Order: sequence, then structure tokens, then C-alpha cells
Amino acid sequence: MRLGIDVGGTKTAAVVLDDNDVAVEELTRPTGYGRDQVLASVLETSAELAQRVGLTPDRFASIGIGIPGAVNAQIGRVEHAVNLGLDRFDLGSEAAARLGTRVSVENDVNAAAVGAYRYVATTGGDTSLGTDGLAYLNLGTGLAAGIVLDGHLRRGSSGVAGEIGHIPVDSGGVICSCGQRGCLETVASGSAIARQWPTTGTSPVHDMMAAAAAGDPVAGRIRALLFEGVATAVRILTLSVDVRTVVLGGGVTSLGEPLLSGVDAVLNEWAEASPFIASLRLGERIRVIPRTHPVAAVGAALIGVSNSV
Amino acid sequence: MRLGIDVGGTKTAAVVLDDNDVAVEELTRPTGYGRDQVLASVLETSAELAQRVGLTPDRFASIGIGIPGAVNAQIGRVEHAVNLGLDRFDLGSEAAARLGTRVSVENDVNAAAVGAYRYVATTGGDTSLGTDGLAYLNLGTGLAAGIVLDGHLRRGSSGVAGEIGHIPVDSGGVICSCGQRGCLETVASGSAIARQWPTTGTSPVHDMMAAAAAGDPVAGRIRALLFEGVATAVRILTLSVDVRTVVLGGGVTSLGEPLLSGVDAVLNEWAEASPFIASLRLGERIRVIPRTHPVAAVGAALIGVSNSV
Repeated sequence: MRLGIDVGGTKTAAVVLDDNDVAVEELTRPTGYGRDQVLASVLETSAELAQRVGLTPDRFASIGIGIPGAVNAQIGRVEHAVNLGLDRFDLGSEAAARLGTRVSVENDVNAAAVGAYRYVATTGGDTSLGTDGLAYLNLGTGLAAGIVLDGHLRRGSSGVAGEIGHIPVDSGGVICSCGQRGCLETVASGSAIARQWPTTGTSPVHDMMAAAAAGDPVAGRIRALLFEGVATAVRILTLSVDVRTVVLGGGVTSLGEPLLSGVDAVLNEWAEASPFIASLRLGERIRVIPRTHPVAAVGAALIGVSNSV
Repeated sequence: MRLGIDVGGTKTAAVVLDDNDVAVEELTRPTGYGRDQVLASVLETSAELAQRVGLTPDRFASIGIGIPGAVNAQIGRVEHAVNLGLDRFDLGSEAAARLGTRVSVENDVNAAAVGAYRYVATTGGDTSLGTDGLAYLNLGTGLAAGIVLDGHLRRGSSGVAGEIGHIPVDSGGVICSCGQRGCLETVASGSAIARQWPTTGTSPVHDMMAAAAAGDPVAGRIRALLFEGVATAVRILTLSVDVRTVVLGGGVTSLGEPLLSGVDAVLNEWAEASPFIASLRLGERIRVIPRTHPVAAVGAALIGVSNSV
């Protein structure tokens, strides 16, 4: 059996896969902050799930961890994970030493891409996906994609494959955290909405959408930028890697149908102006996976085997 | 032995590879226009090169043809090649019937990508290229890239992988031939320069550069857009597929050093503003292949084997 752990900024989700890659146990718990608490989350999650399936953690064939940040997957190091307070932390070897089995670490969006690929390949009934490729487009605090081609995760030559959130799209836009101006992430992400629509509520994204629906022109403008930004991401993924499927994920997708129909309207408008864009059938490439499915944890578990330290 | 033919808008270049993939014969001749003349070019080129190596055309193990346009490589059909006056032309089967051997047809930029990959892999001495990937960025009449990952050409799920020329970069730009506004191709391509700097000379690109060097402010502005556009293409290719190497090719690269240093200056400016961009070392990814090397013809010959009809 294999364990996959998705260490998120606020909560940790984990899943145990049996020898047929079927999920047999899952849990969700709060994530701590900093090295000690993140490591403790991983150890406690492993112990809890091992117990539930009648094992000790060292009996897992592998443990894979997905984490939001820059990861050196080859050596299991978290280079930076700002939201978790981690910097150059050898999470893979630290956890492996304590758990007594192989532990791999991967960027959470990449892990989710692998999990999404497995979900679509096993539930979509489309065998051509193997060669045609899939991108998991994460609309979370930031915007980034993970890319799976021929069934394999593509990190690229320097680990930035799919980092399309840092392609500038608005020369008159704001300065991005990366130092560039008008990056896609500055208009189409959770942080972009929170910056433009500060609120005392729990969700700037939902508050902005409610205000836009009620006719607030500023919220309407922010909403339009969001829809156009997501559509732009799909267009960029198509005109660069030409993936057949773009799975939308991340917190912003909790908007559900209004997000999908808004993006679809932008794509239709583009298709009307351009026969070329129409021929790409961008809207038909978009898929959403049920938010209850722990896609990053499953992906982390699947990566564990091939990529352990 | 294998034959590769690069059918360009004005000239056709061809190369014979021996059984070790070494070029043993080459020729260049004018290309005709329309079905009959394009087919005649292919037949005459094949006959001429076969004779030079002491064979008849049917003795080539395969013949590969690269052509500027939309190609269905699986069935050897040229769907559209505007500059050659072709529309839904089964060039592969027509040529195969007359030449008596397997003939494949591929988009010329894709063919050039395969040829460039071979050139870099055999002359660059860098074995890691195999997995790290290469893009051939064609700056010709249009702008498009061919992508090679793991040594294999990536056409994508619908054949548009690398068509980054149709990613809009300027919301206030002109309408592109594809129907969108401000596509990358409308600022960084031969046709973009010709539109902005019409000239009675033979080369708008060279004329524009000369005028810019002499201080003409309009030409200077066009030149700046060209440099920024090429740099943008390299950034997009890195932040999507993250190829290690971007080989520049196509007519615009006849500008040579002034183009390269202009693009480099843009990349350096970006790197100064953004530690993230600096970390990508975009300038170090750029390579140029000698223009005398028939990269598309070699690529067409190499594709011939695996992809014949």
C-alpha cells in the first residue's frame, strides 16, 4: 500500500492506495506552520492512516508528499514554501528517517496533475489521453499548471513547466510578486481577487462574485478579468503544449458553475472573432473534478513509487 | 539512404542522409506554385538526388517532405499552404505513387525542430538534451515553434503545439490573420515588419534595421517590438514547456548579431526587474544554427522513417 499526503496551506489531506491504486482510507486535518509542525503533520498523518489499515508506517511501499512551493523533487527538498514557513527544508529525508520507508516530495500542483490524470484516465474512458496530454490548472492563491504527457509528469528542464501564471498579459497591470508587471496570476487567482476586492468576509472570491451579480461595476470588472484570465490560461496551454484536457482545480473553482459559464462565454466570444480559435474547441478541453476527490494526495501517492528518495 | 525535402515558399532544399544519418548530397532549387508545380518540384528533386547517389528514387528507404502550412501528418495531406497555393492536397500519397517509396509530409517548422534537435544533440555534446527538450522558434513570414521532448516531435492533441505566434500580447494591437487582436506574430515576424515598414527594397526587415540604426524613431519602435516579441516567445516557451534550448531560425534570423544582442538586452532588463526571470537564465537557452545547415530538410528526412504513409 502507498500513502499520499497533500500538505496545504491550511489543511492536510491524505489517502492510502491499495495495490490496485484504489483509495481505501482518507483523512483531512489542519496543517501546522514551520518545519517542526509540518513534519509533525506528516508523521501524525502517516501514523494515523497506517493504524487504520492495520500497518505501521514503515510498511507503506512509499509515501509521497505534495506541498505548495518550490520543490527539488530529485532530493526531496522544499526550497521555499512561503505559506508554510519553509525554506531549504529536507522534508523527504527527514520524514524518511522517522518513518522508515521511501518518501518523495513534489510541488502540490504537479502532484494534483498526476492525480487528475489518473482520475480522468480511469473515469473518462478516453484511452487517447495517454498521448494527448493533460494540464491541471490550479486557481488557488496563485495560478500555475501541472502538465502530464504520455502519462508522465513534465517538470521541464528547470522545473518551471506549467508556470504560466508568470506570463505577463497586461502591460498596464500591477507588479507581481515575481517582479514582472501584469502577470496572468495578478488577474486570475485567489490572491488577485483578494487584492482587488478586500473584504471582511471569509472569501473575497465569493464576496466579489456576489457583488458582481448584484450589479457592482467594480466587482463586475474584476469578475470579467478573472474569466478572461482563466480563458487566457487555457489558450496558452493549448497553443504551447496543446493538451487535450485542462482540468480546473484550486480554491477559486469553488465558485462552480458561474466560473465555468463565465469562462465559456469568453471562449465563445473569441471563437466568433477567430475561425482559428474556434477550430481549437477550447471549451471542450475544460474539465472539473469533484472537489471531494483528493486529487493532490492521490497524485502524491502515485508519484511516490517512481520518485522516492 | 533517406531523402528529406524542405519545400519553401520560394526555394526547395533537399538532403540525402546515408545509413548513419550523415548528409551525403544536398541541393537547392526554386519552388513552383500550385499542386502540379509543387509535386513536380518534389519529383524532380528526388530524381536528381537519387541520380547523384547512384540510385533510383524508389530505392530511398523513405522520403520526408517539410512544407509551410497546416499538414495532417498521419495521412500525408497538406490541408492548407497559402504561400504555395495548396488546399487539401494529398501530397504524400501522390508523391509515393510516383516515386515508389514511402513518403511522409510534415509542417516545415516541425521538421526543422527535428533537424535542429539532431544538430544540437550531435554537435552540442550535451546528452541531457534528450529529456530536457528543445524548441525551434521560426521567425519567418509568421512566428511558430516546433517542440521536441525526449527526442520526439510533439504535435500536441490537435496539431497546434508550439503555435505561440497566435497568443495575443498586445490588446491594442492590429487584427491578426487568425482573427484575434495583437497576436505575437503581428509584432515579431517577417510579415509584421513588412506591414509596419513597407519598402521598395528586397528586405523590409533589413531596411527597417538599417533605418533604426540610423536613428529613425518609427523604425526604432518597430525594432524594439521585434526584440521584445522574440524575448516574449522565449519566455512563453520556458514558462509552458520549459525547454532547455530555443533554437532561433527563419528568415528574420538573417539579421544575425544585432537581433541576438537586441533580444539579449530585453532579457537582461527583465532579469533585473525579476529575480524569478533571472533564475530562468532565458538568454542561455537561445541558440542559432548556421543558416547554411538545411535543418528542415534534415528533419524531414529523419521524420520520414517513423511517419511514412
